[in-house]
Amino acid sequence: MSFSPLIRQLIDAFRVLPGVGQKTAQRMALQLLERDRSGGQRLAQALTAAMEGVGYCHSCRSLSEEEVCHICSDVRRDEALLCVVQGPVDVFAVEQTGYRGQYFVLKGHLSPLDGLGPEHIGIPELITRINKGNFTEVILATNPTVEGEATAHYIAQVLADKDLSISRLAHGMPLGGELEMVDGGTLSHAFAGRRPIVF
Amino acid sequence: MSFSPLIRQLIDAFRVLPGVGQKTAQRMALQLLERDRSGGQRLAQALTAAMEGVGYCHSCRSLSEEEVCHICSDVRRDEALLCVVQGPVDVFAVEQTGYRGQYFVLKGHLSPLDGLGPEHIGIPELITRINKGNFTEVILATNPTVEGEATAHYIAQVLADKDLSISRLAHGMPLGGELEMVDGGTLSHAFAGRRPIVF
Repeated sequence: MSFSPLIRQLIDAFRVLPGVGQKTAQRMALQLLERDRSGGQRLAQALTAAMEGVGYCHSCRSLSEEEVCHICSDVRRDEALLCVVQGPVDVFAVEQTGYRGQYFVLKGHLSPLDGLGPEHIGIPELITRINKGNFTEVILATNPTVEGEATAHYIAQVLADKDLSISRLAHGMPLGGELEMVDGGTLSHAFAGRRPIVF
Repeated sequence: MSFSPLIRQLIDAFRVLPGVGQKTAQRMALQLLERDRSGGQRLAQALTAAMEGVGYCHSCRSLSEEEVCHICSDVRRDEALLCVVQGPVDVFAVEQTGYRGQYFVLKGHLSPLDGLGPEHIGIPELITRINKGNFTEVILATNPTVEGEATAHYIAQVLADKDLSISRLAHGMPLGGELEMVDGGTLSHAFAGRRPIVF
């Protein structure tokens, strides 16, 4: 015994979403069918519109509906600062800090075991962008994971001969964290990077 | 700073799904846009097809694309047994037990505080169905919650004057459960309903 074909198709289709298994997909499909058909219709329309309409910004390579995204086309932003991130979602995270420079979005991180070298994640395009621009500082904001660190290290080496200040985000205690809950590696970084209290 | 309009719309649309908040919706939207546009298109098509094509079975009132669902139209099923459940998803759960009788699907449970009386959850239609059929037993398989029990109790009272055997699913220890983890109410039921071991 199984669901009818259209319901089964819908359940299967929901499983493309991250973190959605059989049971969750089933719950999503039945909830929409039983309670919120207009919400389901809206979701279908939004999906079609976004999948067809959203491309990549020619300048920073983040997701955008325009040729050049609204960050890159904003003339009030600092043209001397470039922040390099691993994916479009990181742009939205960094924006929340108040950063008002330029961005460059890689396609993930270097992963030689998966066959992902510099040219697959867009490092040549990053170099081109830096050569064309007037940057004085490049902030490597890849994730603080082994792969993210390796990617940042590689980019720093490639850029070493240029007249640029290259920086990496600080490691340390997260705000609101508790000492006993923080892992040893982070705590070592927090100790090494300790700051004098200034009155 | 925010996402571009199409991406924002998609994120908002994902929030109709059960258990999906802002962060999860964001992750779903960006994952599809970055990694799986064809999966996103398929999901949109499946949603449209299901929202428009799936209706309710005229006989058991479960979700179905046909006027009469494939369970109700199956002549090999026992016509003397009727299982009453709270929603379409319960039909699929009960089918896994090997039950091969008929179904009737209520629209949830009685909830006087929310203004949901017998006529809102389909109890008059259930009575009509029972009067028309040749049932000898009605199994009340509403959920073992306070609301589900109240609904079962109400239906049992309404059907009391009919020549029908009315039953309710057994309560007891779940298979694979541990005694110390089972709540007191369930354990009381399991003691009261204990069975002699037959050799």
